[in-house]
Amino acid sequence: MSKVMGLVPEIRPVDAAARAAARERQAQLLKPPGSLGRLEDVAAWVAGVTGRARPGVPRTRVVVAAADHGVVAEGVSAFPQEVTGQMLGAFGAGWAAITVLAEHAGADVVLVDAGVIAPPDGVAAVDVGLPTPSRNLAVEPALMEDEVRSAIRAGRALAGRAQADGVDLLIAGEMGIGNTTPAACLTAALCGLSPEAVVGRGTGVDDAGLWRKRAVIARALDLHGPHLDDPLEILRRLGGGELAVLAGLALGAGEHGLGLICDGVIATAAIAVAAELAPELKPRLLAGHRSVEPAHEHLLSRLGLRPLVELDLRLGEGSGAATALLLVNAACRLHDGMATFAEAGVAGA
Amino acid sequence: MSKVMGLVPEIRPVDAAARAAARERQAQLLKPPGSLGRLEDVAAWVAGVTGRARPGVPRTRVVVAAADHGVVAEGVSAFPQEVTGQMLGAFGAGWAAITVLAEHAGADVVLVDAGVIAPPDGVAAVDVGLPTPSRNLAVEPALMEDEVRSAIRAGRALAGRAQADGVDLLIAGEMGIGNTTPAACLTAALCGLSPEAVVGRGTGVDDAGLWRKRAVIARALDLHGPHLDDPLEILRRLGGGELAVLAGLALGAGEHGLGLICDGVIATAAIAVAAELAPELKPRLLAGHRSVEPAHEHLLSRLGLRPLVELDLRLGEGSGAATALLLVNAACRLHDGMATFAEAGVAGA
Repeated sequence: MSKVMGLVPEIRPVDAAARAAARERQAQLLKPPGSLGRLEDVAAWVAGVTGRARPGVPRTRVVVAAADHGVVAEGVSAFPQEVTGQMLGAFGAGWAAITVLAEHAGADVVLVDAGVIAPPDGVAAVDVGLPTPSRNLAVEPALMEDEVRSAIRAGRALAGRAQADGVDLLIAGEMGIGNTTPAACLTAALCGLSPEAVVGRGTGVDDAGLWRKRAVIARALDLHGPHLDDPLEILRRLGGGELAVLAGLALGAGEHGLGLICDGVIATAAIAVAAELAPELKPRLLAGHRSVEPAHEHLLSRLGLRPLVELDLRLGEGSGAATALLLVNAACRLHDGMATFAEAGVAGA
Repeated sequence: MSKVMGLVPEIRPVDAAARAAARERQAQLLKPPGSLGRLEDVAAWVAGVTGRARPGVPRTRVVVAAADHGVVAEGVSAFPQEVTGQMLGAFGAGWAAITVLAEHAGADVVLVDAGVIAPPDGVAAVDVGLPTPSRNLAVEPALMEDEVRSAIRAGRALAGRAQADGVDLLIAGEMGIGNTTPAACLTAALCGLSPEAVVGRGTGVDDAGLWRKRAVIARALDLHGPHLDDPLEILRRLGGGELAVLAGLALGAGEHGLGLICDGVIATAAIAVAAELAPELKPRLLAGHRSVEPAHEHLLSRLGLRPLVELDLRLGEGSGAATALLLVNAACRLHDGMATFAEAGVAGA
């Protein structure tokens, strides 16, 4: 644990009293007990993470970290690498799925340049000073020791800033051409799975691309295999800039007492690393959606999370979590806005 | 068909050109094709039912029909019968789950008294002049011929009024102590199932109550069995006031070119009757959620619908459909608000 000394913060436990008070309120609201199903669980979860028995609609921030990946040289993506920077520009302009969804859900968006080769001019992104791109994980570790550590610290600082800004919940979003490959590698290493079990088509590689991805993941796992007994080392060798920043963001959510809604396979891989470093983080996590990428289910299982929605999404950016946020907000609105049986003068069962 | 002459309207087909144009737009938006999964399907569905390739966030109305049921005399509900009228009052006051959700989702609510024993004073509900309560379906048909016909016409008229008010989508909601029993009877009769396959705990009967419900459903199916080869007769004998009004509302959605989001087992049973009378209605239907009531899955299968969310809800009122509406609205916002690859100047695959 000496390697992670000072890097992994103390995690604030959720507020069990606020959560219990929320459960008690749900039992009195104008409906048969339990009849709002998982929306009741979600309201109690928000109460627990915020420490407020009636939290109201939470204030939510989407942190989208973008990065390029040296492993793209192996031909693992259907899209050209310049798309990462172009998409960062589209986020800045509000043109992308995540920015439209965040605005619709009442969340703000913070952009992070976690190692983009060609970042666009004039876009307000927090530059965390990582290599552009990360190194090719099929031939060497993706990040140096100081890089992974500074990325984690930057993620933690973003959570601290969110807390200072009055944010209750975070969504970890990402953009990075080629990043389903490091996410699959992280999943294989964390969950002890084969390349076959974790590889998917990402944003749309063809059959040949799928075979190439599988071979690259197998090579990477062989190369780094002797060093994969430590979650920080897994992240450093098989991750990438956005993955390291988001792992730090997750640790920061725990450190600063926020909730975190997991998105798809990339963001969840980063969060799973954080939960290996600090298992007490888990009660602060909510699974937004179930992606079609096969690695996602393994990660959710390992985290013990059941996703709120399953809509065949495979976009990333935080889009699945932002979709789930609509239900989280509704659950909190119900929790706050419904009358109790007594207030409404309605007879009970 | 002579019995339904004049009662079952001509159904307006969905606009295949608008739907195809929406699909074409989805393929150009700033994301890998198909990566928004079912949210893309939903946007195309709204385009088809509204006839607008870029429909924007739809204007939605929740019609909540409330009714009492003679079959409650058989001890099939955990709640006392006066709750139906009290809940109608709570809807009027905005205190119930459906009114909170509808406001949150930007939908308006129309209340219908479809046969409530003790309707509250001062609540604006459309009174459709049905018996209070319906007759006990375990011993006689729930409604007379003229009653079921006038209820269907009233439902159709509500859809006509919605169309005149500029509404795009309807949600059929209901309230009626005891109404999981007629819904289970309708499901058994429509789908050819046994009482065991369709009975559930509703809003919370205990084991003894569950056995009573099963026995009552079996008696009703025996009693009315010789007359159950016609959907209108099934609705008349085994339904109830809110079920007949909502069947009419569904037919009216087809007649007036609206979309209809199905809620839980009660509303879906009514809609399934409408779809037996007018199968061309089906493309205008969207399944909101999957309820925990066992009959619901059978009805959704018969309608060929896959629900958007599965959140262990069992409340009714339209609450599951209103929860799904949040995703429908988001799908339309994405469809309208995202840029295309060309507009954003981002390279394609």
